[in-house]
Amino acid sequence: MVNPKYHVFVCTSCRINGTQKGFCHSKGSVDLVQRFMEEIDDKDLSGEVMVTNTGCFGICDKGPVVVIYPEGTWYGNVTEDDVETIVESHLVGGEKVKELLI
Amino acid sequence: MVNPKYHVFVCTSCRINGTQKGFCHSKGSVDLVQRFMEEIDDKDLSGEVMVTNTGCFGICDKGPVVVIYPEGTWYGNVTEDDVETIVESHLVGGEKVKELLI
Repeated sequence: MVNPKYHVFVCTSCRINGTQKGFCHSKGSVDLVQRFMEEIDDKDLSGEVMVTNTGCFGICDKGPVVVIYPEGTWYGNVTEDDVETIVESHLVGGEKVKELLI
Repeated sequence: MVNPKYHVFVCTSCRINGTQKGFCHSKGSVDLVQRFMEEIDDKDLSGEVMVTNTGCFGICDKGPVVVIYPEGTWYGNVTEDDVETIVESHLVGGEKVKELLI
């Protein structure tokens, strides 16, 4: 699939960025990738949503960081419980999840 | 920097995807990240362009794969020599590099 309707990028970096504490990988972001894939599969969105893990976005203190294009929406401190909300609200409903915006 | 004007994603995955031969990492994509960063620095674009390495996009036979958002432009078989062209044409001039589109 090229040019998905939504492309979800999840930082799974284990880079320690400067003096910031922790990093996305240590805060469970690999599990986030898995949860996004499950939700997307459950909701039959695999034809229009792509999920890709990434290296460091440089804002580790706000991690786990999830970025959704083409809108350029940046979510921070994302937990596994937030994934269903992001998928239902943003990817299905087209409404950003305001409380997670950074 | 959140919400860059252009966000360049470069696959640096060493995943072997199915039966496809080779993968972006083995085709020099880590050097591409470096070249993008140098070009962006040279052209004083660091305030508006972000470069991030990624995991597998699933089209390894077309790698190295570079994706630029927010437009959702997919480039394939990108070489180090192509980086300056992409930066000048696409990121500075706003014109996609047609011969690299996949």
